[in-house]
Amino acid sequence: MYGLIGKIRSVPGQRDALASLLIQASSGMPGCLSYVVALDAAEADDLWVTEVWDSSASHRASLSLPSVQQAITKAKPLIVGFGERFETKPIGGYGLST
Amino acid sequence: MYGLIGKIRSVPGQRDALASLLIQASSGMPGCLSYVVALDAAEADDLWVTEVWDSSASHRASLSLPSVQQAITKAKPLIVGFGERFETKPIGGYGLST
Repeated sequence: MYGLIGKIRSVPGQRDALASLLIQASSGMPGCLSYVVALDAAEADDLWVTEVWDSSASHRASLSLPSVQQAITKAKPLIVGFGERFETKPIGGYGLST
Repeated sequence: MYGLIGKIRSVPGQRDALASLLIQASSGMPGCLSYVVALDAAEADDLWVTEVWDSSASHRASLSLPSVQQAITKAKPLIVGFGERFETKPIGGYGLST
């Protein structure tokens, strides 16, 4: 499996709109086992996205899906920048969809 | 919802054993919607745990479950320390179990 933990900083006041776009785009991605969008509990403009994929190839391929391309286009103006980013190798646990 | 993203550093060579303990303990926790154990892709002794709960109260209560208490007792000698820790408010996405 392949995992990503990443923080995105939104344009002030646009975090909810950005989160909605990401959530809408998060279903129907082949090879995606988990994609959780979360608000940072401390920082008003920060979002976390935690992802689990069956492979890094599936993650890479998802970036070319029309639905994801569309979401990226809409999301870009709402993003100021990116914070922490960690690549992981998920190995198990609870709640991994197939 | 309530979320945690946290890094655990294992005793050198004990990461797999620690991960197994955490994975074993990750099912059957009331209110847990996702609990993913992942190896850090860059650091040989680092593990990530990403958690989603229906509430912080469910997370707190899980720490008193006999199965979790048992896992903590077994895991402690395998842990050197803790790294980054982020509290989040998950709001949606894909793969949240109920």
